[in-house]
Amino acid sequence: MSADQTLIDRVTGGAAPVAATANPNETVVLDHGTGAKLSRELVERISETLGDVYLGAMEDSALLELPTNRIAFTTDSFVVTPIIFGNGDIGKIAVCGTVNDLAVSGARPLYLTLSLIIETGMPMDELLTIIASVRDTACAAGVKIVAGDTKVVRKGDAGRLFINTAGVGVLERPPTSIQSVRPGQKILLSGYIGNHSIHLLSIREGLGFERNVLSDCAPLNHMIDAVLNGVPAGKIASLRDVTRGGLCAVLHEHARASECCIRFERNALPILPEAAMAADMLGIDVIHLANEGCLCLFVEPDAADDVLAILHRDPAGQYAAIIGEVGAATGAQVRLVEADGSEITIAELHGAELPRLC
Amino acid sequence: MSADQTLIDRVTGGAAPVAATANPNETVVLDHGTGAKLSRELVERISETLGDVYLGAMEDSALLELPTNRIAFTTDSFVVTPIIFGNGDIGKIAVCGTVNDLAVSGARPLYLTLSLIIETGMPMDELLTIIASVRDTACAAGVKIVAGDTKVVRKGDAGRLFINTAGVGVLERPPTSIQSVRPGQKILLSGYIGNHSIHLLSIREGLGFERNVLSDCAPLNHMIDAVLNGVPAGKIASLRDVTRGGLCAVLHEHARASECCIRFERNALPILPEAAMAADMLGIDVIHLANEGCLCLFVEPDAADDVLAILHRDPAGQYAAIIGEVGAATGAQVRLVEADGSEITIAELHGAELPRLC
Repeated sequence: MSADQTLIDRVTGGAAPVAATANPNETVVLDHGTGAKLSRELVERISETLGDVYLGAMEDSALLELPTNRIAFTTDSFVVTPIIFGNGDIGKIAVCGTVNDLAVSGARPLYLTLSLIIETGMPMDELLTIIASVRDTACAAGVKIVAGDTKVVRKGDAGRLFINTAGVGVLERPPTSIQSVRPGQKILLSGYIGNHSIHLLSIREGLGFERNVLSDCAPLNHMIDAVLNGVPAGKIASLRDVTRGGLCAVLHEHARASECCIRFERNALPILPEAAMAADMLGIDVIHLANEGCLCLFVEPDAADDVLAILHRDPAGQYAAIIGEVGAATGAQVRLVEADGSEITIAELHGAELPRLC
Repeated sequence: MSADQTLIDRVTGGAAPVAATANPNETVVLDHGTGAKLSRELVERISETLGDVYLGAMEDSALLELPTNRIAFTTDSFVVTPIIFGNGDIGKIAVCGTVNDLAVSGARPLYLTLSLIIETGMPMDELLTIIASVRDTACAAGVKIVAGDTKVVRKGDAGRLFINTAGVGVLERPPTSIQSVRPGQKILLSGYIGNHSIHLLSIREGLGFERNVLSDCAPLNHMIDAVLNGVPAGKIASLRDVTRGGLCAVLHEHARASECCIRFERNALPILPEAAMAADMLGIDVIHLANEGCLCLFVEPDAADDVLAILHRDPAGQYAAIIGEVGAATGAQVRLVEADGSEITIAELHGAELPRLC
């Protein structure tokens, strides 16, 4: 079993048993959304499927006592298609996205809310399979679902299923901050870039890469804990989940915040060979492709090797690499040293050049 | 100016200036959602429109220090159509819904997240008008928007605009709880029932009632503060925002929780005459219609008159009335004393009988 397969099992907790439905042809209908008995039944089935990760009533405010009064609070909506792919689904992404957004700020993710916008006609089996993924991913991340909402909309009013998660985490250590980025810091990636995007694009365009290039979608809070706890406070300036807009967007964001020239090397980028091939075929540079389980870290130079070693010990970080560094504060710029040694300026994309993914 | 008009002005803060757009024909396009420069520009325009109510960066976790470590946490998605109606829009509802859900648990609402799912082709003016409503309503409620998300989806993949808000409030007093409901308590409504639904249905069905029956959508946290602070702790057992499923759903929820027979009177229900007329024409009983600014309160009998007086002093509570009481714990039941004095059991609706509203 490859290391990647181990990671998938670890995240999903193995095969997720789906709550039995009485009728295999059962679908979600508009009447499930009107607030009467059918609504309660739909919510009950979702609650049952969530099992132990679910702490509250899907319709009320959750009342919680936190370990501290210092929190991180974030939200994200998930509109990905296809909603179910090779090694995951929109439910898994919805948990990972918010857990990782909390964790990269330095917070310990604790509680999520789960809002579903379901298109009428969605098969109940499919919905409950996705809810089971939410359960398994929340379990792997160590978070609880504490409140939620379900809405049912007409056909054509939603792409099958949209999910929103919001999350609260607690700040038990100094938060990371993009404002701490400064010249000399090393830039690291925790894993292969572009896999999630290539996987989805391959399915959508019928390219056939999706069996070899799986989504990297994973909760990263445990790995982030390890790095933040493994080096002295302040050595890790900034962390980012490399999602929409890819590595390029993250580097530009940091260049703007620090007004520094950020330089990275093509040859240093961790890329799965099959993903590189697929990106070539699609005519897209991997630096613009979204991941769902890859970190970009800005680290003081004297701690970079230690951070790399910690990342390598985690299954999600085994391909981590140092890819570049923050240069002088001569104005925001991102420069790439290409494979042939030439150096070029990388512009931030406008928008149209990127595939529509997240 | 009628009292209702005063209320509308108070909630919206008067006419909301909309951020000027360079091109009146400008629309939101898919490229606004790919995570590159256009995405940043869209987020910046939304942030500008939000102005002072907006505390953070639309894409990161908000880091917050709360007055206490005891919180209420909730979420809701808003898929209403039409997205703009006579005296409000989906932005106003999105703030009120979550503010009120926090407040009815006894919490003081503090922070909201704001997630937008925008259908490509949506006019930018319309989007920013709705964002201006979010701003004005948040301002009226005294809450800040601290984090958010924007997604753009294909035509047909969302009903023009969906909004999700999540909210955090602080528990600085004992929370209310449906488990505290017991025989003898009085049941109050804070205002006219059904107005929000009648207003939207009238627009959608072209009935012509919408000028006379405005939406009651309003943030109720200040009024809830007044009642919770105005009587001794414990006198108000439970509070609910009367939304999806209407008064009937709220009463059934409380009957189930307390296993009591809940009895209320048709003649005691606060109903705007034009709304009653419209409901007759639509063939719907107002007890099933959703509001967006009406409370149902379960109050100890010796405090009911005091609570009523406090409600009456608030513009949103001027039509408050005692409508019934919690009977003996003989099993969950909801009974209605009709206008002619006859008493009938009200069943919980299945789903199909309700108009699709929220």
